[in-house]
Amino acid sequence: VTVEPLAASGVGWIEAPVFDDARGSLTATDLPALPFLPVRMFSVYGVPVGEVRGVHAHRRCHQILTCVHGSVHVTWDDGSERGEVVLDRPSRSLLLPAMVWGGQRFDAAGAVLIVLASLPYDRGDYIDDYDEFLAELRPIS
Amino acid sequence: VTVEPLAASGVGWIEAPVFDDARGSLTATDLPALPFLPVRMFSVYGVPVGEVRGVHAHRRCHQILTCVHGSVHVTWDDGSERGEVVLDRPSRSLLLPAMVWGGQRFDAAGAVLIVLASLPYDRGDYIDDYDEFLAELRPIS
Repeated sequence: VTVEPLAASGVGWIEAPVFDDARGSLTATDLPALPFLPVRMFSVYGVPVGEVRGVHAHRRCHQILTCVHGSVHVTWDDGSERGEVVLDRPSRSLLLPAMVWGGQRFDAAGAVLIVLASLPYDRGDYIDDYDEFLAELRPIS
Repeated sequence: VTVEPLAASGVGWIEAPVFDDARGSLTATDLPALPFLPVRMFSVYGVPVGEVRGVHAHRRCHQILTCVHGSVHVTWDDGSERGEVVLDRPSRSLLLPAMVWGGQRFDAAGAVLIVLASLPYDRGDYIDDYDEFLAELRPIS
């Protein structure tokens, strides 16, 4: 697994190999080869078209986002750099490290987002306020 | 994570909790709580409607099958019992242990099947011949 970096903070693309034939496509990931070993997987689905989810940062949890059906528009912001990407295939994932602000807009009916996370669910790991996010990024500025 | 058994061989349902609200649905799985720790994840997609995939057994690899979009009709056969189930939601998965013959028919356009596997890819782990499968199940009969 290689990460194509988008920013010094570690945001980047993860590309998985695709095996195509007349019976369809298969894309596979060796989990121990990822930048972190996932301990939690969740799926987000049944989201109204245009709805934005996420819009928070995690203090310690790293995540890998994959849209396996439809498309999801992702914004990220690490306090120094920001960007927008479209996730629209099972083989191309976005690595969203801890302390990166992110939001996901579900652009298609039936879009399904799969997230692999480095830590168990912990409400205390969320930063929901953008100013608080910046304050925690730059505690002495 | 609880498994609702379908057969003594260990074939069974795995149900994950679902969190619904106006912004859509989320279903989550703690990976260390599964019957095995997955080391490989693969997605199968772009399959022609009605096409059957799988149709083999694994000697040592356990798998968990989840259809996260559309529906997939799964047949399983452990040599003593056999059954058919439909996978049609991200929160309900089928545990398919090693030495269970299985096939998956993709019933809907755009169906996406996610598989968690207990072992890395190994072509030598596949049994593609049903009589060979039975012979390996009952080496002394």
